[in-house]
Amino acid sequence: MLNPIETLKEYIRFPSVSTDPAYAEGMRGAREFATGLLEDLGFKVEVIETDLHPVLLAERIGSPDWPHIAIYGHYDVQPADPFALWTDAPFEPTERNGRLYGRGTADNKGPTIVHMAALSRVLAEHPDLPLNITYVIEGEEEIGSPSMPKFFDRYAERLSQADFMLVSDTGSPNTEQIVITTALRGLVDFEIKLRGPKGDLHSGIHGGAVYNPLQALMEICASLHNPDGSVNVPGFYDDVVPVLDWEREELKRYPETVESYRAMLDVPAFFPANGLSPLEAVRFGPTLEFNGIGGGYQGEGSKTVIPSQAFAKITCRLVADQDPVKIRQQIFATIQERCPAGVTLTFRDGGIAEAYLAVPPGRPNTPADQPESLARAFKAAEVAIADQFGKAPIYLREGGSIPVIADFKKRAGLDALMIGLFTPVDNLHAPDESFSLELMKNAIAAFEQIIKDIAHGK
Amino acid sequence: MLNPIETLKEYIRFPSVSTDPAYAEGMRGAREFATGLLEDLGFKVEVIETDLHPVLLAERIGSPDWPHIAIYGHYDVQPADPFALWTDAPFEPTERNGRLYGRGTADNKGPTIVHMAALSRVLAEHPDLPLNITYVIEGEEEIGSPSMPKFFDRYAERLSQADFMLVSDTGSPNTEQIVITTALRGLVDFEIKLRGPKGDLHSGIHGGAVYNPLQALMEICASLHNPDGSVNVPGFYDDVVPVLDWEREELKRYPETVESYRAMLDVPAFFPANGLSPLEAVRFGPTLEFNGIGGGYQGEGSKTVIPSQAFAKITCRLVADQDPVKIRQQIFATIQERCPAGVTLTFRDGGIAEAYLAVPPGRPNTPADQPESLARAFKAAEVAIADQFGKAPIYLREGGSIPVIADFKKRAGLDALMIGLFTPVDNLHAPDESFSLELMKNAIAAFEQIIKDIAHGK
Repeated sequence: MLNPIETLKEYIRFPSVSTDPAYAEGMRGAREFATGLLEDLGFKVEVIETDLHPVLLAERIGSPDWPHIAIYGHYDVQPADPFALWTDAPFEPTERNGRLYGRGTADNKGPTIVHMAALSRVLAEHPDLPLNITYVIEGEEEIGSPSMPKFFDRYAERLSQADFMLVSDTGSPNTEQIVITTALRGLVDFEIKLRGPKGDLHSGIHGGAVYNPLQALMEICASLHNPDGSVNVPGFYDDVVPVLDWEREELKRYPETVESYRAMLDVPAFFPANGLSPLEAVRFGPTLEFNGIGGGYQGEGSKTVIPSQAFAKITCRLVADQDPVKIRQQIFATIQERCPAGVTLTFRDGGIAEAYLAVPPGRPNTPADQPESLARAFKAAEVAIADQFGKAPIYLREGGSIPVIADFKKRAGLDALMIGLFTPVDNLHAPDESFSLELMKNAIAAFEQIIKDIAHGK
Repeated sequence: MLNPIETLKEYIRFPSVSTDPAYAEGMRGAREFATGLLEDLGFKVEVIETDLHPVLLAERIGSPDWPHIAIYGHYDVQPADPFALWTDAPFEPTERNGRLYGRGTADNKGPTIVHMAALSRVLAEHPDLPLNITYVIEGEEEIGSPSMPKFFDRYAERLSQADFMLVSDTGSPNTEQIVITTALRGLVDFEIKLRGPKGDLHSGIHGGAVYNPLQALMEICASLHNPDGSVNVPGFYDDVVPVLDWEREELKRYPETVESYRAMLDVPAFFPANGLSPLEAVRFGPTLEFNGIGGGYQGEGSKTVIPSQAFAKITCRLVADQDPVKIRQQIFATIQERCPAGVTLTFRDGGIAEAYLAVPPGRPNTPADQPESLARAFKAAEVAIADQFGKAPIYLREGGSIPVIADFKKRAGLDALMIGLFTPVDNLHAPDESFSLELMKNAIAAFEQIIKDIAHGK
């Protein structure tokens, strides 16, 4: 049987940084290590070549009458820079205070080992477990999964044989209160670029004649929100699914208050739109957010110049059922319409992703056609989490985006049961990333129970 | 008698870059060279020590009954970087196509030599010229004249013995059409800094709750202009002197059309406020201009972050009779009032300068108390320029700022007769700065005539 902590340590030692070609060897090592683990569990593993990092596609198929689950994970990690801020070496896992420290411990190698350890125990007890399993472990999650569209082109039909997908790549508030994530936000990513005069101009000699591109940029951008903070783009909210009472009730169980949240972010006041509370707004509402602006003099003090160019980098977080193609078209048209004649406008189109929403059974907004298998999985997870963590899970939408989850649904018809195993203190994407060993232990027990329930429930 | 071209070449060879301590030797050399020239002309020169670069204060005083002029210039120059863009070495003056190339040829060593060469000729012909002259040649003009307030504290009373001041540190449209500059714009320089959350936030996890400081900055800044381009700060235009018909008539003689100006700046359209034409707006109207904005992600592509901080660097160009202290107070109060509660606002106060206006005699807006000496100087200049350049000068306000000119007026009561000897092709502050030798020749002849007229006119 798989030793979870020792196995995770071995996995962490492969520095699988997908964004940096210098880590090709670490990527290969992590991929081969994961392949070995899956083979030890009895899986038939295919290493699917892509333009960049291969995808592991593994199967344990018995009878077509058995339930069939898919499990998603990724073997790549974020860069560890800045190395100097780590207490210990990021790729030399270290146990301290009940936590395992190292890059990838929480995102996503720890959760992957949780799934595998649970499977290992169940299969040791029930070698003939009546459960078909398809594993997808990709190597490009941290760089936006660029190879997954082509992967879906070739394998969507095979994937669609599964009933639904297990994912643990989302968060929970702490190690005791687990969240089952019911939604992820979508994304529209773009940049406005404005050009005024062909070069920077002396603001004394030419000031007053030309439309300063910084001014034009700020006027356009300021027009994109209403005074109440809502997005001022026609049609932006047309397809937004409402927040339901049951979701507000679940959120009340979330162990964070508006004041503790405000203190954590250290802001003087919140500014949520559309009548949502701050804790609701980050989960239930769409946004149009400025990620970076620039133009003109950037140094100390002043320089009396009318700049030639200006930019604003913008991303929208979308909620179900906003169509990112339509939203992008509406935003671009609005900006074009509001751009004054004195400047020249161009866009950088950074891509889009759909929002994802999967409602547990028995809610007012549960899809009428929800498969019985998914409904059962939600129930199994709810019971197992309550049993193993001592608290019933909270069903909650999440503000972040995992674009590939919506693609699994759209391309292969797979809904996701997302059980959050990160917590805010895990330092994802930051120095001193860690994973709670207590949470790991309880999560393995919970997944053991979930897998058994699913296998025997049909 | 002083050989103007050879003397200017010698003067240029001293690299008197005031902003860079590495050029202390060049500053000393230029200062001593100018001292020598003044002594050769019969001046008693005092080298006035300051906290940084000394000021040359030189006098030729005869009878208190003689007319008394002051002449202003500066011996420091802009840095020559980037050196690689110069055709020849910037501090090795080179004659080419009727121009002398080198840093400082036009700004301000050439005009200084024009004044001295003219004086040299007049004094050779009339050694007993009945004219008192006070020279002020400073070494910090290119860095904002920081030592001049203390200089005025000590010497304002002595300076006030003069009737008015001759200055050639402004521009003309070309070598044939000379402008007598009647006004300079003032300046208010500041920076808005906003802070939101204590660190950059993940735009998925926290997007929707907080007031993005980039958004707040752009909303505040966008509110500072009305849709017609005018400045939207209460009281901003209260004290603006009107544009008079005679000024519009003078501008019609300016050898630039709106279309040629638009083509030069390469903008799709102009955006002047308050019903002014673009050529009027840069001279007659005040502005509030964004010189630099920034915050958040500045690299390629996107980063899904809610930035912690944002800034906007702003300067206003003011016209007579706007009070920069009052304007600054109005702007700061307006911004404070419009700043939302979700962010924290601080200002960097970069200083202020008053606008300057001196109207030639006989205009509707000529001050009733204009000294006869100044009126006579305007007339002498008008006649001499027409005689030597073949075209009557244009009286025109200028958009730029020379803060020390308003200080000479305010502190020592000295109005300025500003005869523009730069042209747009002279590349001031840029590589390949040059000065037209044809203009130099004609300007020396004109100043010869002006000096004689002033000396003998009383």
